[in-house]
Parts: sequence; structure tokens; C-alpha cells
Amino acid sequence: MTFFESLADRINSIGSILCIGLDPDPAYIPSHLQDEDLPSWSFNRRIIDATCSYAAAYKPNAAYYENSDGWASLVETISYAHGKGVPVILDAKRADIGSTAHQYAKLLDMADAITANPYMGIDSLSPFLSRSDAGIFILCRTSNPGGSDLQNLKLSSGTHLYEHVALLADSWNEHGNVGLVVGATNPDELQRVRTLTPDLPFLVPGIGAQKGDAESAAKYCLSSSNAGLVSASRSIIFAGAGDTFDKSAAEAAKRARNLLNQFLK
Amino acid sequence: MTFFESLADRINSIGSILCIGLDPDPAYIPSHLQDEDLPSWSFNRRIIDATCSYAAAYKPNAAYYENSDGWASLVETISYAHGKGVPVILDAKRADIGSTAHQYAKLLDMADAITANPYMGIDSLSPFLSRSDAGIFILCRTSNPGGSDLQNLKLSSGTHLYEHVALLADSWNEHGNVGLVVGATNPDELQRVRTLTPDLPFLVPGIGAQKGDAESAAKYCLSSSNAGLVSASRSIIFAGAGDTFDKSAAEAAKRARNLLNQFLK
Repeated sequence: MTFFESLADRINSIGSILCIGLDPDPAYIPSHLQDEDLPSWSFNRRIIDATCSYAAAYKPNAAYYENSDGWASLVETISYAHGKGVPVILDAKRADIGSTAHQYAKLLDMADAITANPYMGIDSLSPFLSRSDAGIFILCRTSNPGGSDLQNLKLSSGTHLYEHVALLADSWNEHGNVGLVVGATNPDELQRVRTLTPDLPFLVPGIGAQKGDAESAAKYCLSSSNAGLVSASRSIIFAGAGDTFDKSAAEAAKRARNLLNQFLK
Repeated sequence: MTFFESLADRINSIGSILCIGLDPDPAYIPSHLQDEDLPSWSFNRRIIDATCSYAAAYKPNAAYYENSDGWASLVETISYAHGKGVPVILDAKRADIGSTAHQYAKLLDMADAITANPYMGIDSLSPFLSRSDAGIFILCRTSNPGGSDLQNLKLSSGTHLYEHVALLADSWNEHGNVGLVVGATNPDELQRVRTLTPDLPFLVPGIGAQKGDAESAAKYCLSSSNAGLVSASRSIIFAGAGDTFDKSAAEAAKRARNLLNQFLK
């Protein structure tokens, strides 16, 4: 079973397309967890306990694990999510030349899927793409304001760069393991990419703290095989503070799931 | 003093534009170091001892430090290089949306400079760009075969994407801290980017194991302020094997320095 087949199964069985970002920003971890051995992991464990019934997937962003305790926190977090039956996408946005990309691809021994950056082209991604057991979400049209700097450039062929990347990614999908990152903040472009690549699952960030369009996100994220995710991070995991942060996160996750489900037919 | 000013000073004082990549691939670390607590760090320390008089800078690639001992090895390595007076560029190729980019920018508390990916645009790089004390080498035209997939696309304006990125990066250089990564494997394009952006220091990989053009690399890497680097990794650090790997690395570094210097006027 491919990653996207098992993701479609989980989405169907729990009735949720919500992906929860695990971005334990040290500035927001509640003070009562700051003295634990691994505060990020302590935080994530409580978030996972509170939200796993609403989470089609978890998505730790690698930036929050690049510190002395980061690797151990990440390993514990992924293992714990797996114990709850929830797949994990490492939001790493990696890519590098051949030998180094092979090194990065080892991250897929731990996580089920990864996000990757297309700027360096096919051979910078091929060690990921050859992993038929994993999912590779390639950055296409990102949700940040500066996303348009390169992605919306018009090519001499008449298409925009993000459209070209979508079609390239589709051509790289030999193993049924390629998806796209397409932001919710530009609904027209999200619809356009869905039209271009009906078979690719989308990971759609930008609802929640980024105020993207939840309706478009829900409507377009799913591929022809019903795999796809809408992601929220800070709006869920930092919905509350203090001793009851995990209860607030659970309520925020439930609300986000319900909001998204009302837009699914 | 900016990073590039101090880099120009070091280049001038030791007479070398060579940047040595510290990519301790576990498959190639000599067996007598495998039992050390931190094999990558043990390896790097010996490489630094043997090559620091030839190294204008060191460049650890983050991919080789994403494992349980990675962070500690990286911290020790950077600290040791600094103790020898050698600046360190973290080859991370990072970029992410606002809050996460701020997290990644903390890597510059440790390293002196970083490599970054432009695909997500200005706001994904601004936490790096605002660090006037650091150097930010933005990927422009990379040395791998797939580099042309996106970078050589022709825009409706008539320029290629890599040329557009060069000019964008130049416009982002408010603090004199922006450089470009331009591969040595495409000498014509390297020359073209030098013409477009005379003031930006280049980090030129691709000589050595990638068989790029050392002459062009040396000729075009330096900015108008005499900052710039030509990088080699595997061809130096894995030049030899067994007990004398560090001596072989020193000889390879000396040869690479001399080769590059013969092309500098």
C-alpha cells in the first residue's frame, strides 16, 4: 500500500482531512513544561494525546528541531504519533545535489512523507522520488506573500512557473508518491493547480493563522484517489496557554475539522 | 565589519579562495574513528587540523548532521573551526514562511553564513537578510544536471530564471550580506551571472568530484570587493582513507588551492 493509499484510508476512517503542524516554538511552550528534559517533546506528546482523533496526519516542521534536543524530540514525537496510528509528514522543504539528497532521503526512514523544494530540479529530488513507500510533497504555490516572487513569474511558454512546476511534478510521479504544496491563500491558483494535476494529493497550508480560504482548501485538496490534507499549525497547537493548552488545542482541532468537513460534499 | 569584509581579509591573508565542504558521510569515515563518541566530529577535527591553513572557509552541509549525534557534532565542528580563525558557512539551503524562517535564522547565531533557497520569495529569506552580521548565499544556478529544470526556464521577459534570481538577490542586498551559489559546471552561465551582479560574492561548488571548470570558478567567484569562494568537498576530505586520511586531505587541499591561485591574476 502506498503512502497516499493509506492516507486516503485514514481520512475516510476518521472523517478528517486536517493535518496538524507540530511547530513547538520555544517562545510559546507553556512554562510548566519548560523544565522537562525535552520540552518540545513534552509539548507534542500532550498535543498528540489531545488531538489524534481529529488528525489525518501530523506535520512537524524541521526548523523547530534544529537545536541540541531537537533530534531526540523529533524521534520521540514521530514514534508516538505512529503509536496512535497517525502518519507523519516532515516539513523539511529539502533538496540538494545527488549524494547529499541521498543523505536527506534517510529522513524517510523515520517519517512517512516529506516536503521538498523543486528549485534544484529532478536529480535533487530523485532519492526522495525513488521511495515508493513514502510521500513527497513538492512546493508548488506557497501561501506566503513572497511566494509570488518566483512562482508567479510568467514563462515564455505562457504558463506561470508554479503551473510548470505542477506539471513537472506530475511527470515525476512514476511511483504514485508525489503530492504538491499549494497554499490556501490564493484560491484561484489552488483551483488552477487542481485542474492541471487531478491525480496529485495536495498539502494545503494557510488556513488558521495565515487566514487562507478554508472552503477552497477543502474543495481542492483531495486528489482523484481521495488523498490530500489541509494543514493548520499555530492556530491549533497554540490556541490556548497555561495548564489547559492541550484542551484548547483539542477544541481548535475539532472546530477546524468540522469547518473543513462542511465544505466536503 | 561585515561577513564578506572579513572573508575578503582572510582570503587575502592566507592566499586562498578555497572553501572546504565538511560532509562527513558515515560510509566514508575511516573505521578507526567509528568507535569514537561522535565520529563525524572526530573526523572533522582531524580534517580541520590538517587543512585549516588552506581553507578560506569551511562549509558543513546540514544533511550530514541530521541524526542523533548530528547537532553536537555540528556545534563542536563550528566552534573548532572558529578557534582556528576559519569562518563557517552552513550549507542548509533553507527557506520557509515567516515564523519558521525566523526559527531557521537562529542557525546564524552559530554559523557565520548560510545557503538559502529562493523559491519561496523574499519573506522566506528576510529573517536571514536582516542579519547584517552574516552572509546569505542564495541558490542561483546550481551545479547539478537537474539544475536546468527550473533555473534555465526562459521567462516572458526574455531572461532566464537564474538571471532573474541573480538580479532579485542583488536588489535584496541592502546590508551587503547577500551572495550567490553559482555552479562551476556551466562556465558561460557563471560568467553571465558575474556580469549581471559584479558586487555579489559567489560560492562556486562543482570543482573536484563534480568536475566543474576550476579556471572559470576562480576567475568569476570574486566580487568587486574581493569576496568569494570556490568549494570542494568529497575530493578533499575523502582524498585518502585509513589512518592517513587527514594527510591525504591536506595534500588535496593544497593542490586545490594552488590550482585556483594559478587562475587568479
